[in-house]
Amino acid sequence: MRDDTNKPWRGQSWPRTVSGKSALVEPLPHHISCEALHVNFRANPDAVAHFLPPGLEPLEDGAGWVMIAEMAKVSAHQPEQIWRDPSRSSYNECVLGFYCRYGDRIGRFSALVWVDRDWSLGMGAIFGWGKRLGAIDRTRLQSTNPALAGEDVKLGGTVSRHGHHVLSLSVDLPGGGAPLDAMPGHGGSTFLYRYVASPSPDVPDIEQLFELGFTNVRQTGIRQGAGEIRFGSAPDEELDVLGTVEVTGGFTYQRGWTTDRTARLLQDFSTPGQ
Amino acid sequence: MRDDTNKPWRGQSWPRTVSGKSALVEPLPHHISCEALHVNFRANPDAVAHFLPPGLEPLEDGAGWVMIAEMAKVSAHQPEQIWRDPSRSSYNECVLGFYCRYGDRIGRFSALVWVDRDWSLGMGAIFGWGKRLGAIDRTRLQSTNPALAGEDVKLGGTVSRHGHHVLSLSVDLPGGGAPLDAMPGHGGSTFLYRYVASPSPDVPDIEQLFELGFTNVRQTGIRQGAGEIRFGSAPDEELDVLGTVEVTGGFTYQRGWTTDRTARLLQDFSTPGQ
Amino acid sequence: MRDDTNKPWRGQSWPRTVSGKSALVEPLPHHISCEALHVNFRANPDAVAHFLPPGLEPLEDGAGWVMIAEMAKVSAHQPEQIWRDPSRSSYNECVLGFYCRYGDRIGRFSALVWVDRDWSLGMGAIFGWGKRLGAIDRTRLQSTNPALAGEDVKLGGTVSRHGHHVLSLSVDLPGGGAPLDAMPGHGGSTFLYRYVASPSPDVPDIEQLFELGFTNVRQTGIRQGAGEIRFGSAPDEELDVLGTVEVTGGFTYQRGWTTDRTARLLQDFSTPGQ
Amino acid sequence: MRDDTNKPWRGQSWPRTVSGKSALVEPLPHHISCEALHVNFRANPDAVAHFLPPGLEPLEDGAGWVMIAEMAKVSAHQPEQIWRDPSRSSYNECVLGFYCRYGDRIGRFSALVWVDRDWSLGMGAIFGWGKRLGAIDRTRLQSTNPALAGEDVKLGGTVSRHGHHVLSLSVDLPGGGAPLDAMPGHGGSTFLYRYVASPSPDVPDIEQLFELGFTNVRQTGIRQGAGEIRFGSAPDEELDVLGTVEVTGGFTYQRGWTTDRTARLLQDFSTPGQ
Repeated sequence: MRDDTNKPWRGQSWPRTVSGKSALVEPLPHHISCEALHVNFRANPDAVAHFLPPGLEPLEDGAGWVMIAEMAKVSAHQPEQIWRDPSRSSYNECVLGFYCRYGDRIGRFSALVWVDRDWSLGMGAIFGWGKRLGAIDRTRLQSTNPALAGEDVKLGGTVSRHGHHVLSLSVDLPGGGAPLDAMPGHGGSTFLYRYVASPSPDVPDIEQLFELGFTNVRQTGIRQGAGEIRFGSAPDEELDVLGTVEVTGGFTYQRGWTTDRTARLLQDFSTPGQ
Repeated sequence: MRDDTNKPWRGQSWPRTVSGKSALVEPLPHHISCEALHVNFRANPDAVAHFLPPGLEPLEDGAGWVMIAEMAKVSAHQPEQIWRDPSRSSYNECVLGFYCRYGDRIGRFSALVWVDRDWSLGMGAIFGWGKRLGAIDRTRLQSTNPALAGEDVKLGGTVSRHGHHVLSLSVDLPGGGAPLDAMPGHGGSTFLYRYVASPSPDVPDIEQLFELGFTNVRQTGIRQGAGEIRFGSAPDEELDVLGTVEVTGGFTYQRGWTTDRTARLLQDFSTPGQ
Repeated sequence: MRDDTNKPWRGQSWPRTVSGKSALVEPLPHHISCEALHVNFRANPDAVAHFLPPGLEPLEDGAGWVMIAEMAKVSAHQPEQIWRDPSRSSYNECVLGFYCRYGDRIGRFSALVWVDRDWSLGMGAIFGWGKRLGAIDRTRLQSTNPALAGEDVKLGGTVSRHGHHVLSLSVDLPGGGAPLDAMPGHGGSTFLYRYVASPSPDVPDIEQLFELGFTNVRQTGIRQGAGEIRFGSAPDEELDVLGTVEVTGGFTYQRGWTTDRTARLLQDFSTPGQ
Repeated sequence: MRDDTNKPWRGQSWPRTVSGKSALVEPLPHHISCEALHVNFRANPDAVAHFLPPGLEPLEDGAGWVMIAEMAKVSAHQPEQIWRDPSRSSYNECVLGFYCRYGDRIGRFSALVWVDRDWSLGMGAIFGWGKRLGAIDRTRLQSTNPALAGEDVKLGGTVSRHGHHVLSLSVDLPGGGAPLDAMPGHGGSTFLYRYVASPSPDVPDIEQLFELGFTNVRQTGIRQGAGEIRFGSAPDEELDVLGTVEVTGGFTYQRGWTTDRTARLLQDFSTPGQ
C-alpha cells in the first residue's frame, strides 16, 4: 500500500484534495456578523422537548426565539474574500432556538436553522447545527427609502423551503424602538447536538453533545418593540408542534462573533459505555 | 361581441385579471432605495456608442459607471408589503450606465441592468431598462464583524448570469473613505430607450426614447475611495467591447427616490414619419 | 442630432446594443418542446371569466387545463446553443389556460404561466403571455429507477412562487395509461392578450388582442389516466377564485412546435376609435 | 439527568427531532436513477493523484470520467413523494471521478460532485461524497422539438458554481450514436472517503475509507459517440490541475440503482493505531 504519510491531504470539509482548495467549508475560525430581527416567545415545554436532543431539557417557561438576519462571514485565513468573492461571504439565516438545561447549566440550543448558501449548510455536519437550505428574506431598513422616512418602522422576515412557507415574523418599532443595553434572556452556553449517520454496519453513527462558546462577541444597536410570529406547514417541517406561542418581545440589533473548533464534549452517545 | 365596458380589467403588468392581484409588477409609483457600491470610469467613446440607442451620443470623455447595491422597493399602494412579504421588497441590482447627450442636454443612460427578482425585471418592459436576471452580491459592511472592526475597509461586488462571470468591482476606503456632500458627475436627466418587439406583422415594434425624472431623491453617507472594475465574458454579454477602462473613483452611499410613470416622450421610432 | 440611419441597433428584446448579443430574448423563431403532465378540468364559467381579457368569453362548460412540463427551446438562429449552453435551452413551465370564444371562434387562452428562466419570461412582453418566475417541478419518469419499475405509475407536478404554494397536480396511469391518438379538446386558435403599461402620459398603454398559430406541431406518446389538481393561495395569486374544479382527465405526452412573430391582430384597445 | 431512553429521537440526518420529520436526508435506502451524458478521459496519473484520498492510487492510464445527468431519487420509506413533492425527488448532478486502486482491487472514486438540491448534498456527510451545490444543466433530448428532429444529435452539459464556470462537456451522436450492451471501464467497487472535521479538541476528526456496492443496478439505452470536455477555473475549484485531458469516448444512457448504508470499512484514519 502506498505511503500517504508524504501526501498532504487538506480541506476543512469535503471535498478534500491535496490543496484543500475545493473544500465546501473554508478554514476555521470564521468571523461572523448579523443584522438581525429577533422575536422571543414562550411555548409549551412539552412541545419544546420535541425539538431538544437527548440530554437537554426545556425550561419551565418554554422560552425560545426566532432570529432572521442578513449575515456576513469571513474565514480568518481568507481575509480578502469579503470583497473579492462576496457570494461566499454574504448570506441569510434564520434560527429557531430554545433555552434549555443540561444538568444544572442553562444554555441555548439552535434547533432548526435555514440558510441560503451551501458553505454555511456545510458547517452543520461539523458543529451539529440543524441547517437546511431555504429562502430567507427580511425587510431592509434603508432610511433613504421614501416609504421608510418616518420615525415608526415595522420590519418583517420570512422563511420558505422547497416552495412551502416555514415561518414569518415581524417587529414593530414605534419611534424606532426602545434602546436596550443588552438582550434579555440567558446568555450562558450554547449546546450542540451532532449527528452524522454511518454509511456502514462496521462503524457507529456519530452522536455527540457539546458545549460551545464564541469569542469576540459584540452586540450593538439593540432596539426593542413588539413582535409577532406565524408558523407554516410543510411536508418536512413540524413547527405546528409548537402551536400558538406567546410572544414576549421583538428586537432588532447587530451582532458579531468568531466561531472556532473549541467545543467541549459533554456526552458521546456513539460510543457505547462512555 | 360582449360588452367589456362593464368589466374592470386590472394589473400594472401582465398577467392581468379582473382584480389585478396576479400582476408581476405592483401598482406604480414605487419607493426605491439602495445601499450602493459605485465606481466611475472613462471608456473609449466609440465603445460607449456601442451601448447607446439611436438618438443618444457618448460624451467626449466616455464617462460611465457601475453600481452594485442591496435594494428595497415598496409600492405606494402596498405599504405593508415591506414587512409582510420582504421577498417582494428586498432585491439586488447592478447597473452599468453611461453619461450621454441628447441634442444639447446631458443625462444618464442605464445601458445594462442585472437584478435578482422577476418583479424588478418586469419594470424593464414598462420603462425601457435593459434588465436581465443575474446573481448580484456585495460585501455587507457590518461593523460588528471581527474582520471589519478596523477603520480601513475594502468592499466588493460581483455579477454573474447563467454561470458566467459578468463583472466585479471593488471600493477601497482607507479610514472609512473621504466624506462627500454630493457625488461627482452630471445629475441632469435620465434617458430611457424602450423596445418591445411586435408579435405580428400587423403592428409595429415599440421603439421610443424618453426622459425621466425621479422625485423624493435623497442621498446620504457618501464616502469616496479608490475603485476597480473587471469585466468578464459570456455568450450573451459584450462588456469586452469596453476594453480596459480608466477608473476615476470608487464610492459607497445610500440613496432613495420614487419612480413613477411621468416620463416625457423624446422620440418615437415606432411610428414612421414622426 | 446624430444620424442613426448608419447605426445598426439590434436585439429581439431589451437590452439592445449595436450587436444584439446582450438581448434577453434570442432571435425568433424558437423551436420548443415539452415533456408534459396535463390535467383538464371544468370550472364555473363566471370564475373563468375572471381570468379572460376583454373580448374573450368563457365556454359554457368552463373548460380549462393545467400543464406542467420539462421544456427545451432552441432559437433557429443559434442551433448550437442546445448543446453549448443548455442553461439557455432547458427550462420548466406551468400553464393554466382556458378554452374561450372570440366572436364565433373557439380557441385557447394561456391565462397564467410560470417559468424558471428569465429569457422565457421575456417572451411575455412580446407575445402577451402572463409569465412570472416560479419553481416548477415534475416527476421524472425514469424507468430504470427501482421505484418506477412497475407498470403502474403516478406522476405529479408542483408550482411555487416566492415561497408560496401555487398549485399541484397528479396523473395516475394504471398500466402506464391508455394510449390516445390525439388530446381531447378544441384545437382551434390561440388567443393572446398583450398589455404593456406606458411609462409616460405622452403615449398610451399597449393593449391588444391577437390570434396566433404554431407551425411544425407534433405530439407523441399521449397516455390518458386520472388527474387531480389542488390550488394554493399566495399574496399575489388568485387561483382560489376557481374554487374546486371538476377534473375531466389526466394526461402525459411529448409535444413540439415552432413559435414565431406571425400573430394576427384581432383588436387594439390602445388606439381609441379602432 | 433526564432519562432519554424513553424518548425516541429520529432522523436520517440533522436536524433531528422526536419525529424525524425535519431531517434533511430522508430514510435510506434511496432508489436513484439518471438520464446521463458521460465522457471518459485519460489524464496524467500525477494529476489524478491530486484528487485521490490516502489509500487510493491512480491507474497507470489516468482513467477518469465526467457524468452530467437529470436525476430522480425516491426514499424507499416515502414512495408517494415522487408524485406528491417532486422538488424533493428531481435533481441534477455532475460527478467527476477516477478509476483507482486500493491494494489489488480496482474501483471507482467520485472525487468531486455538484448537485442542485440540499437533501442530495446532505448525503455527502454520510457517504463521504464531495458534494457541493452548483447549477447543472444538460440538453434535453426531446425528439418532438423541430430542432432535434434529425438523426444526428449533439448533446451538452454545463456546471457552474457561485457564478463561475466549472466544466462543460458534449457528446456528439451521429445517427443517434452506436448502441452498446455495456459501458467500457472497470465496474468493480466504489470507494468512499469520508471526512467530517471535529468541532472540539476532545474528539478526533472522522476520516475513513470505505467500499460501497449498489443493488438493483440496471443500465439501458447506452449509445456511444464522440465526447469533449472543457474545464473552467474558479476561486474554489482546481480542475486546472488536470490540464488538457485525452477524451476516450462520449456516451448517453439511463441508469438506476439503490443506495443503502451497506459500506464496508477499509481503513479508519481517525482512530490512531487502527
